Amino acid sequence: MNKSAFSKRVAALRERLKKLPCDTVWIIQPENRRYLSGFKAEDAQLTELSGSLLINKTQAVLVTDSRYSLEAEKEAIDFEVHTIKQDLIEGFPEKLKRIGTEKLGFEEDHLTWGLHRQLTEALGALSPPVSLKPLKGLVEEMREIKDNLEVKALEASADLMSEILDTVIRGLKPGLTEREVAWQIEALAREAGAESLAFPSIVASGPNSALPHAVPTDRTLKTKEPIILDVGVRLDTYRSDMTRTVFLGEPEPDLKNIYMTVRQAQLAALKEVRPGVDSCHPDAIARQIINDAGFGEYFGHGLGHGVGLATHERPRLAPQKPVKLKKGMVVTVEPGIYVPGKGGVRLEEMVVIEADGPRILTKNNHFYDFKS
Amino acid sequence: MNKSAFSKRVAALRERLKKLPCDTVWIIQPENRRYLSGFKAEDAQLTELSGSLLINKTQAVLVTDSRYSLEAEKEAIDFEVHTIKQDLIEGFPEKLKRIGTEKLGFEEDHLTWGLHRQLTEALGALSPPVSLKPLKGLVEEMREIKDNLEVKALEASADLMSEILDTVIRGLKPGLTEREVAWQIEALAREAGAESLAFPSIVASGPNSALPHAVPTDRTLKTKEPIILDVGVRLDTYRSDMTRTVFLGEPEPDLKNIYMTVRQAQLAALKEVRPGVDSCHPDAIARQIINDAGFGEYFGHGLGHGVGLATHERPRLAPQKPVKLKKGMVVTVEPGIYVPGKGGVRLEEMVVIEADGPRILTKNNHFYDFKS
Repeated sequence: MNKSAFSKRVAALRERLKKLPCDTVWIIQPENRRYLSGFKAEDAQLTELSGSLLINKTQAVLVTDSRYSLEAEKEAIDFEVHTIKQDLIEGFPEKLKRIGTEKLGFEEDHLTWGLHRQLTEALGALSPPVSLKPLKGLVEEMREIKDNLEVKALEASADLMSEILDTVIRGLKPGLTEREVAWQIEALAREAGAESLAFPSIVASGPNSALPHAVPTDRTLKTKEPIILDVGVRLDTYRSDMTRTVFLGEPEPDLKNIYMTVRQAQLAALKEVRPGVDSCHPDAIARQIINDAGFGEYFGHGLGHGVGLATHERPRLAPQKPVKLKKGMVVTVEPGIYVPGKGGVRLEEMVVIEADGPRILTKNNHFYDFKS
Repeated sequence: MNKSAFSKRVAALRERLKKLPCDTVWIIQPENRRYLSGFKAEDAQLTELSGSLLINKTQAVLVTDSRYSLEAEKEAIDFEVHTIKQDLIEGFPEKLKRIGTEKLGFEEDHLTWGLHRQLTEALGALSPPVSLKPLKGLVEEMREIKDNLEVKALEASADLMSEILDTVIRGLKPGLTEREVAWQIEALAREAGAESLAFPSIVASGPNSALPHAVPTDRTLKTKEPIILDVGVRLDTYRSDMTRTVFLGEPEPDLKNIYMTVRQAQLAALKEVRPGVDSCHPDAIARQIINDAGFGEYFGHGLGHGVGLATHERPRLAPQKPVKLKKGMVVTVEPGIYVPGKGGVRLEEMVVIEADGPRILTKNNHFYDFKS
């Protein structure tokens, strides 16, 4: 990340600010903070912010407490760092007065009701009073389109995850437990420099593979059963997300059929992930193929979702609330079929949408081409 | 955890409910959910709950979506599990009507302003309408006093952390980086069965030890310098928290003096952590010793905090907002001195308050007894 990337983002926010019912935007959501400023600190808990951004027409300030001020100075190079007491209610109102705020826009999906109440009191008591204005999805919407630096960061994250998954899949054998495999993935990720996993790995074998959000258990891997590995890392705060379903030994025909149905649905949907298409369209294509094969009731989730600083972000590739897909979006394409008692198959790629279609970021395929 | 522990907690909540301005309590905070029900799932993000509890005079319901319903059935054995759509606004109001809610108490420090707004609309449209009532610290206050099962769980967590830290300290040598040591701690914790660290480990050497919340860097350990290790694990969802400051080779006299001042402050404060004492008193005792030694300005944080399902919970051992210490509280005692440029020393024990005083849960001391 260089200085200009953050400056551009702040400039884009200021463009949006012109149309908002506030003169200052207050950013407390950790990924939004990171996106606009470069400040990477996380919050110990919801009621314990490591910092927040105040951005108005001319000023860009990062407000933090002494625990984080050194890190803030180093990371948020375009921001003025102001250190206040840890308790927001103490130093914060004064800070707002100093930068001339009268109407403060806040992130309604991140500020708690209780802190809003406390701030309403504290800010109302100022003279002149400062009022609070709710904002919804302001920075999240900006984050939909990735700039070149972000695409590179996501590519690096997907590369690392692909390599690790390749190593892990090659080492799978009957007798290993799901939990052991999950820990291998995490240890390799951390040793390779990832800050953390992007989310707790799913390693689900046999009947567990029929649970879309299975938690790894002490169940041992067995031959011929599906093993779903849904994994991602966080590398320089950017996330990856990919899924493979593998078999140790050739599966029964009905599982082969499920597998190839999912794979066909994925390949067909991938072709439709291009600029100008409605986000519900690739989902509909995949769903149609799965329906036609008689598995419609076993594909209970959406086709995919945006990935970036968060594992789940905009846009969603799902039947509801379609948006137009655009160049620079990074999304997953992950159809699945889950038959209770029998098992499940999910296949997930992470792609960046380019002018002429999707470029797949996840590698080391480990896909099967079963002949029926 | 057995059934009766959770039943008792729900019964205690119902006692409190009698005095609250609501007929149903809605619990969304993950540690509070775990405390009352046993349900261990975490939330993928703030706007993506894995479940919530509804408790009234006669009913105890865990509302979740299909991703978590199996886990909920298994873990929350005293609760009726109701599965609704993932989007809270869709199925939730109907659920409230069914259990007869008219006034719903919500956790004001966890519910976002935006979700509160949406719910206010959706619940106001019901007939009769359901109104929302803010609750602050209701379950957090109950969690202050640990029952026997919780003390055992915290003891197991502190035991595991003590063992791991012992191994790691014995293996320290010049040339290892802070980051390598931090990763050793995490890998040992996970391999021993911890779900995760309780918080990102602090491994801070030389000048970094003067930053109370240092993040591990690529700096290599050197002889004679302080190395602060502030670490904890999460074992069966219960946390530990302990700090040692170690030296590779004998330090200079001024660092020995700082060390012994912190240690004396800690030992003196520990004696005062007993039932009936104000929570500010042990802090004052430690602070006096550090002041008298001329380091008052370098002890910038409070003496300690409660530990349990969260790393930082009630009560705080600090100068502000004193409460009476009680039997069954589990707290840290962690004075420190941080001299910019020179280095810092922090020593932290985790103790349970028993009838006749503190019992220290953290082990393998690695304390020095420098003679002046």
